[in-house]
Amino acid sequence: MNKQVIMIDGNEATASVAHRLSEVIAIYPITPSSGMGEFADEWSSKGRPNLWGTVPLVIEMQSEGGAAGTVHGALQTGALTTTFTASQGLLLMIPNMYKIAGELTSAVFHVAARAIAAHALSIYGDHQDVMAVRQTGWALLSSGSVQEAHDFAAIAQMATFKARVPFLHFFDGFRTSHEVNKIFQLSDDELRSLIDNDLIREHRARALNPNKPVLRGSAQNPDVYFQMREAVNPYYTAVPGIAQAAMEKFAKVTGRHYKLFDYFGHPEAERVVVIMGSGGETAVETVKYLVAKGEKVGAVLVRLYRPFSLEHFIKALPKSVKSIAVLDRTKEPGASGEPLYLDVVNALVEGNRPGIKTIGGRYGLSSKEFTPGMVKAVLDELNKTAPKTHFTVGINDDVSHTSLNVDPTFIIEPEGVVSCVFFGLGADGTVGANKNSIKIIGEETDNFAQGYFYYDSKKSGTVTMSHLRFGPQPIRAPYLIELNQANFVACHQFSFLERVDMLKYAKTGGTFLLNSLYGPDEVWDHLPVEVQKDILEKKLKFYVINGYEVAEKTGMGGRMNTIMQTAFFAISGILPRDAAIAEIKKAIEKTYGKRGEAVVKRNFEAVDSTLENLCEVKVPVGITSKMTRRLPVPKEAPEFVQNVLGEIIGFKGDDIPVSAFPVDGTFPTGTTQWEKRNIALEIPVWDEKLCIQCGKCVIVCPHAVIRHKVYSDVALAGAPETFKHVPSKFKEFSAGYAYTVQVAPEDCTGCTLCIEACPVKDKTQVGRR
Amino acid sequence: MNKQVIMIDGNEATASVAHRLSEVIAIYPITPSSGMGEFADEWSSKGRPNLWGTVPLVIEMQSEGGAAGTVHGALQTGALTTTFTASQGLLLMIPNMYKIAGELTSAVFHVAARAIAAHALSIYGDHQDVMAVRQTGWALLSSGSVQEAHDFAAIAQMATFKARVPFLHFFDGFRTSHEVNKIFQLSDDELRSLIDNDLIREHRARALNPNKPVLRGSAQNPDVYFQMREAVNPYYTAVPGIAQAAMEKFAKVTGRHYKLFDYFGHPEAERVVVIMGSGGETAVETVKYLVAKGEKVGAVLVRLYRPFSLEHFIKALPKSVKSIAVLDRTKEPGASGEPLYLDVVNALVEGNRPGIKTIGGRYGLSSKEFTPGMVKAVLDELNKTAPKTHFTVGINDDVSHTSLNVDPTFIIEPEGVVSCVFFGLGADGTVGANKNSIKIIGEETDNFAQGYFYYDSKKSGTVTMSHLRFGPQPIRAPYLIELNQANFVACHQFSFLERVDMLKYAKTGGTFLLNSLYGPDEVWDHLPVEVQKDILEKKLKFYVINGYEVAEKTGMGGRMNTIMQTAFFAISGILPRDAAIAEIKKAIEKTYGKRGEAVVKRNFEAVDSTLENLCEVKVPVGITSKMTRRLPVPKEAPEFVQNVLGEIIGFKGDDIPVSAFPVDGTFPTGTTQWEKRNIALEIPVWDEKLCIQCGKCVIVCPHAVIRHKVYSDVALAGAPETFKHVPSKFKEFSAGYAYTVQVAPEDCTGCTLCIEACPVKDKTQVGRR
Repeated sequence: MNKQVIMIDGNEATASVAHRLSEVIAIYPITPSSGMGEFADEWSSKGRPNLWGTVPLVIEMQSEGGAAGTVHGALQTGALTTTFTASQGLLLMIPNMYKIAGELTSAVFHVAARAIAAHALSIYGDHQDVMAVRQTGWALLSSGSVQEAHDFAAIAQMATFKARVPFLHFFDGFRTSHEVNKIFQLSDDELRSLIDNDLIREHRARALNPNKPVLRGSAQNPDVYFQMREAVNPYYTAVPGIAQAAMEKFAKVTGRHYKLFDYFGHPEAERVVVIMGSGGETAVETVKYLVAKGEKVGAVLVRLYRPFSLEHFIKALPKSVKSIAVLDRTKEPGASGEPLYLDVVNALVEGNRPGIKTIGGRYGLSSKEFTPGMVKAVLDELNKTAPKTHFTVGINDDVSHTSLNVDPTFIIEPEGVVSCVFFGLGADGTVGANKNSIKIIGEETDNFAQGYFYYDSKKSGTVTMSHLRFGPQPIRAPYLIELNQANFVACHQFSFLERVDMLKYAKTGGTFLLNSLYGPDEVWDHLPVEVQKDILEKKLKFYVINGYEVAEKTGMGGRMNTIMQTAFFAISGILPRDAAIAEIKKAIEKTYGKRGEAVVKRNFEAVDSTLENLCEVKVPVGITSKMTRRLPVPKEAPEFVQNVLGEIIGFKGDDIPVSAFPVDGTFPTGTTQWEKRNIALEIPVWDEKLCIQCGKCVIVCPHAVIRHKVYSDVALAGAPETFKHVPSKFKEFSAGYAYTVQVAPEDCTGCTLCIEACPVKDKTQVGRR
Repeated sequence: MNKQVIMIDGNEATASVAHRLSEVIAIYPITPSSGMGEFADEWSSKGRPNLWGTVPLVIEMQSEGGAAGTVHGALQTGALTTTFTASQGLLLMIPNMYKIAGELTSAVFHVAARAIAAHALSIYGDHQDVMAVRQTGWALLSSGSVQEAHDFAAIAQMATFKARVPFLHFFDGFRTSHEVNKIFQLSDDELRSLIDNDLIREHRARALNPNKPVLRGSAQNPDVYFQMREAVNPYYTAVPGIAQAAMEKFAKVTGRHYKLFDYFGHPEAERVVVIMGSGGETAVETVKYLVAKGEKVGAVLVRLYRPFSLEHFIKALPKSVKSIAVLDRTKEPGASGEPLYLDVVNALVEGNRPGIKTIGGRYGLSSKEFTPGMVKAVLDELNKTAPKTHFTVGINDDVSHTSLNVDPTFIIEPEGVVSCVFFGLGADGTVGANKNSIKIIGEETDNFAQGYFYYDSKKSGTVTMSHLRFGPQPIRAPYLIELNQANFVACHQFSFLERVDMLKYAKTGGTFLLNSLYGPDEVWDHLPVEVQKDILEKKLKFYVINGYEVAEKTGMGGRMNTIMQTAFFAISGILPRDAAIAEIKKAIEKTYGKRGEAVVKRNFEAVDSTLENLCEVKVPVGITSKMTRRLPVPKEAPEFVQNVLGEIIGFKGDDIPVSAFPVDGTFPTGTTQWEKRNIALEIPVWDEKLCIQCGKCVIVCPHAVIRHKVYSDVALAGAPETFKHVPSKFKEFSAGYAYTVQVAPEDCTGCTLCIEACPVKDKTQVGRR
């Protein structure tokens, strides 16, 4: 390949173009768009210039409302200006968006599209936010992948300069913003050849300038406002043509072709889905798979959603189409249909395409998985005489019965793709190491590669999942690795075994790597029954490494990430062992270099010690364990905790039916008492002999794990012998009072803050880790 | 009539119900909804209780964002809570609206729907703001008249208590919010019988309460958010039935019947318009008129826009319908169609009503007039083989050619309606007096009555127009009095004659009342040619009164309002003269009572002196005047000033075609220099002998009318003899320097602030008024 290929996520892919094409960037962080602002801020702080040699001014405001105002103001000075946002952040920009559009100002917003807080907040991706601004007069351009986010960032800018209508460029929050994929990078020279400097000059000439004053932002009365609101019509009529021309110029420069409405599938398709965003990739790949099997199906990907070009849409649709399913990644309660569905219904009426049966449905709210099986379920529905409309897909709606049945065994993964799932603990470094791994694979081998990382919004201390795929063809699978599909499963925390069903992801004949306190000879008996069963039934190769020990010995403390990463490369053999180790060390230097030589050295040692400690387990032939996996919550927990919260804790939230949930986001309180995460490998132990009863450990514990109490000796009657207590040292409660510090082991995360806080010198005694 | 009838505007009609049904009212003023907040604030400050005997807490916040947050918070405590807003104010409430709806919280917002600032701000009415929140999950209930605003304020509250879905009740800003009309008032007892206290108890029981804690406002992940977002579906499905039931219960109590979609017209109509808001009244009245003439036409009024009930809509539509025109009072540039249009297209598809030709159009943006002639133009368009779609009506769109032609002579005013137009100067009291007049007519006679008041947003010092109608039938005409339709035209400012074409409103045989400096014998020759011509051609009865003189003599200063009001009653004879005078005096006491007895007494004197000073003019047979009406701007003005700003100044803005306007709201500066309003009756005169050259008059003049200059004597060479100047008193510029104060008479408003500021004692000499 001549072109530079890089492994980056959607946020960086977008910011890379936006930063090079901007002079002013007004930001306010909101998940999942924060990455774009952070990259831009970092690059500007390091003096990285834009395409014209000046360093973009990055301004963080007090809110997204302020950021939008700054954008509007900067645009009026003629500056090339952008912002990055999502969700409520975008909602706060609405008033300014009307103004920017009404004044026909060339501008681009980049949005990592996200759900909106209704019954509950969600930081995850869907199109509720961008749909909430579709009336503002902005063009809406949708990217469906990391490559498209990179490319459309440029195309949006090309088009807005020509059209004067501002562009909102969006892609799916998390699914695209946080997916790492291998893309062709737009070079500065390519960007330069795409952007027309004459149009920038015209943009500048329209600026407010005291030397050439004009009035903008007037107040108008009934006599003239309406006429002026209609005066912009020709500009909107021109946008589709301008956007298509930009895409064609882009194709000439880069070889990557896009259309306003891109049709994929059978040339004489009878059943077609219409879709926008990352789900479009899934739809296209599924359609290709089905067409190869002889089905007459197709998919229309919507790139330019606003202005909606009736003409281009009708042209994209094969003449043979008999039925259409429109998929909206949004929900507007009370609407007669979701937005894209209504547009398609109208396009068929106005475009004079009668007799096409059209249904609409919702999918993927808040990054709900959208899989090939779901695409197939939708296409299957179109085969029915009376297909459901206003359906949902991806959930079990046992209340309004909107949901379609999905076949979980329908898999379209192409030959040669290697899928790997890694389970880590939030903040244990697993995600970071896996990001490095997939970048190494993507950039140092001929493989295409994809990484997606799932973290609970509890962040630190909960399970993280890293989904890595690589193979000889571009990875177009914007969904998690499906059940029974992973060639490689790694468990970076031994304690997960008893509560997370990890091996459901493993393929028959796959590999399981376990970070184990127990060696290859003794580990088997320490596995729960379910794990033994899966290993046997799926004929898994089973490796262990005592990452805890290696980490401790090499001074890495609790961080096993480098060790597990090395083990992964050693087992998988993607790269020759030496090359892999060299790349891991390069990544370590890049990641930890700024923390000093000692840290880098410790990591290097950990890498080197890994190989000698990695062992394959000879899997016995039979199930020996008596231990079963723990219930997520105990049986004594209230019904709602068992049926809803317990299922969520047990990673089965996706399966909970609609009927199980409160209708208005109201939950019972005090339910965390039932979630015993039991994640600490070592817990503090109270040394009653040394304790000065200062209570600092109680105060600093972030999880309220340590409690202390002064109480009358009388209460000790009948206490078990092992119950520790000492006489109270408190002046007010001395004679006849006892004192106890009690630790709740299952709630402890092992963070060691209590030990840091303890003022007694002999720390090895006071609170041994 | 048994029921209490009152003359109030839409804001008061709404606030009257909202205040009685609320415990917390969070407000932030924004035109045209401010009236609702002001009424509520005033009533609470006076201790007026709600229906349950407690005084609503009215809280003014720092912005509408804060008001929405306050509403959300108060609702969560179980308080009955509301707010009033419009336009950008409503936009700032969007994030909270999603939350309030997502949590299924019974609440009502009252919105005086208004345009949104795009190329320019506008405080006037349309549906852009409510359409910008149609995706938030709120029910949207539309009132089309003052009576409906009153009634639907109650129906919205009834429905939200039952449905738990929050209701946004809206009506057209200015057109309904500021129209005074005669309505049946809902008594406390009626309201009590409408509201179900058990439902309020349930609302309270759902409150956040530390004694019975629940968790609300959680953060959710991809596993469960989607399911919970769908859990509300049954609540939305139920809303239409609940709203219709509320309307039926309301009808039982009040006798006033409403439906979700109200059909009016021929039972076998072939052409139908679908419309929402005040334009619906115009559509219905026009349809009735045309049906009476034998046309098969009809109108569907949309009351409950969200949730959109497909079933109710289809049921409302006669089976005979062949074509439909959907009228949207909004514009969403780039959309494939406006919102209501898309809903109707989809309803016909899903409701299986094929073969109905459907077109959509925009009307009435920013309170653009929407008249019976426009309704007829739309219905006529449906008669064509290839009717325009995405049309506009009410403007001349010579750019995109979207506009329909309208016949200005199509008038449907029923027999017996008396129409009166009054021209006053902003802040001269004309509007206030006319409000009193129409209230007197509506409340003290059997007449139905309507008052609508148009003021420029320049407010003080510009032309105000009062449009009053009354007659034996309810006045359902939410548009200005049309050309040649006014039975009575009054000009309260003599100087308007030379720049405003007022008599174009006058009906043949109507009456013209002029506040004139000249008596009945001399006035004729002081009228411009155009005025003489109109009086003669239209055979107008012509009255004059020297209101200026009467005002000065009775100590009223510049305020002629009471005098002109008295003259109106005297001439029109609506009430017996004595009764009219008694009512006017009652109104004076009510309006000015708080300013003290002296003010009331002066007004009484003015009333009494009016009758003896009011004279009918014997209209001569011929045109005698050589004076023509002034051009709004001089011929030397730049082209744009002549063609656009001049037309606006000359009250012909409605006729300016789209092509004349800038596309992006950009105007040239320095154009006020061309608008010579010439409205001061008396101007300051510089007394160079007394002047101490302090310059205070220059500083205080709010219109920059007074300039002073120190200059070299040399510059005086060739100055006209009348050019006033004195030696400069400035130390730095003494010998050889002159000083002049110059007044620009045409720009002066006669406000007298310069005289107030002048420190020289002998005020009668320094700056005589």
